[in-house]
Amino acid sequence: MTLVNPYLISRRKNFFSKLAAHHLDGYLITSDINIRYLTGFPASESWLLVSPKKSYYMTDFRYVLEARQGLPGIAVHRYRSSLSKAFGSLARALRLERIGFDDRHLSFHAFKRLKNERPASIKLIAVNGLVEELREIKDAGEINLIRQALKLHLEAYRFLKGVIKPGVRESEVLLQLERFVRDRKVGFAFDPIIASGPNSCLPHAKITDRKIQPHEPVLVDIGIEVDGYKSDLTRIFFLGTIPHLVRKIYSAVALAQEKAITKIQPGVRVADIDAQARRYLNSQKLGQFFGHSLGHGVGLEIHEGPRLSSQSSSILKENMVVTVEPAVYLPQKFGIRIEDMVLVTAGGCEVLSGNRNHRD
Amino acid sequence: MTLVNPYLISRRKNFFSKLAAHHLDGYLITSDINIRYLTGFPASESWLLVSPKKSYYMTDFRYVLEARQGLPGIAVHRYRSSLSKAFGSLARALRLERIGFDDRHLSFHAFKRLKNERPASIKLIAVNGLVEELREIKDAGEINLIRQALKLHLEAYRFLKGVIKPGVRESEVLLQLERFVRDRKVGFAFDPIIASGPNSCLPHAKITDRKIQPHEPVLVDIGIEVDGYKSDLTRIFFLGTIPHLVRKIYSAVALAQEKAITKIQPGVRVADIDAQARRYLNSQKLGQFFGHSLGHGVGLEIHEGPRLSSQSSSILKENMVVTVEPAVYLPQKFGIRIEDMVLVTAGGCEVLSGNRNHRD
Repeated sequence: MTLVNPYLISRRKNFFSKLAAHHLDGYLITSDINIRYLTGFPASESWLLVSPKKSYYMTDFRYVLEARQGLPGIAVHRYRSSLSKAFGSLARALRLERIGFDDRHLSFHAFKRLKNERPASIKLIAVNGLVEELREIKDAGEINLIRQALKLHLEAYRFLKGVIKPGVRESEVLLQLERFVRDRKVGFAFDPIIASGPNSCLPHAKITDRKIQPHEPVLVDIGIEVDGYKSDLTRIFFLGTIPHLVRKIYSAVALAQEKAITKIQPGVRVADIDAQARRYLNSQKLGQFFGHSLGHGVGLEIHEGPRLSSQSSSILKENMVVTVEPAVYLPQKFGIRIEDMVLVTAGGCEVLSGNRNHRD
Repeated sequence: MTLVNPYLISRRKNFFSKLAAHHLDGYLITSDINIRYLTGFPASESWLLVSPKKSYYMTDFRYVLEARQGLPGIAVHRYRSSLSKAFGSLARALRLERIGFDDRHLSFHAFKRLKNERPASIKLIAVNGLVEELREIKDAGEINLIRQALKLHLEAYRFLKGVIKPGVRESEVLLQLERFVRDRKVGFAFDPIIASGPNSCLPHAKITDRKIQPHEPVLVDIGIEVDGYKSDLTRIFFLGTIPHLVRKIYSAVALAQEKAITKIQPGVRVADIDAQARRYLNSQKLGQFFGHSLGHGVGLEIHEGPRLSSQSSSILKENMVVTVEPAVYLPQKFGIRIEDMVLVTAGGCEVLSGNRNHRD
């Protein structure tokens, strides 16, 4: 008998509370990541019908054996013709009436099918973000995996200090880094960015065969993934003498980050955190070169809630994990981005990727 | 000045013919892969509005510089608030009236926004699969990249012959394979499958730390990607003496594949190709252990049209590239799948992954 991970039990319990609050007696989850969050199972091309009565994982021939082994506490339904037909028959058998779904995780095409093929007694109600809201607050199991990813990540950066040298190509740095990561039996959370000199102007630069030149900054932004959970840090590696302008911009970005992190604690609006960094860069006449938002949540996805953005009305809560990554990109010259990961604690925050504790 | 790849010019020309046939004066492409097919640019979180008057690539701060360098012949529009607002204003400026889109590549949520925010003069019409239909027929540039991927792929399999041995773990085989692939500066098209003994019963088995045992089959299903184009082959590696049952099943699957490939030529229904293999396995009382369809197209995506399925009404055409992969999975015992890639030629077909030519 496979035991159910205790974190999964509380995640599902919290999810049922949300269903009750929205007067839903069931919910159709069509996002692989959200299914993984509630079941621990790395879903693919499958749906999960959740209800307090019974929950069904709907999958086809290809995944049904793994699903039966990997989903304790969830019934596995092998569908023959289509997911939407399977949904209809299972929802009818459970006598569900008000079933929620997330209209961002279903194509317009799939929605029309679902609607046309459902029993008439079932009302489909778009209630978005229920699982994502839970995912914003990390449990101890998740924080532990993120810490493991960060430990390897910081080791990787120490390793890179010996690799990034004038004359070495960006692509050669990548080869060394891939070997380092592979030897530790983990993977990357996204395609690594290793951007030397002017290549660092592009926020999402592709790795090239360019040779690193003396005295230029090299921007490295990578993520390590452990059991689905991710790290995300950006560091600037300096070679030789740091030119005056680079040093000046770097200091400004670092100070902008410091000002933002200092404000992180439960109850603060994320827009205010973003504003802290942006206001400082504006005061240095650098705000126009900082075109993206300040940060984002990290967990099963590399970008998840909450977004640290001026456009967001979210409030920080204990056990959120967010990046703080102010940047200045000077076109044709160079870009400086400094990115750390921060855990919101009861008393303030902990910089997971450093040794700085703020008000803890 | 960057020159436009001549294949891109003919792809766009063919696409405009399709728009005219559907009485559309524009088309909104929301799939990254379809954008890449028509522009050569590896799109991400961007939309492409195509019209014979002018075409716009809509992207944000993060990708705008790369887009301006990488999209000759296409205007790049940097959006500030949202893709759907940008779409509305560009479509209005071009005075477009009937704009097609693919409702499988837009969430129900995004569709509602698009519809609500568009100028009233614009009619949005769901016409699915226009780009995918073009992608089914490969041009010479695409076939060349697939051949390059297959060349490396077959080298990788020769290399694995020296690696797969009794006592070696599946995960150790993966490490060696990863090194081989990385040294050639290419990547995998999907997570490799290396399934020894009973693990091969799962069509999409995960790699484990299981040690390969003497006299058992090892199923290896990998893909190599070159410039976005993919290979997809499955081979069974045998160790020591092949047990009688394994040998019998292997022969049946190989013969089923041979019977299917022999029928491949322009004008034949894909359902008939699937039936060839299935009928033979049924005659051997093995049909019940073959639960998936016979094959699929391969190109920019690992699974694309046409699907070689009994449910499909597609007809084979010259320059389609498809896999042919019959299989028998005996629960708790072992699975045998043999997968090759086949190019449909004017006179019949060419097995791209072997040295067998059929009726050419």
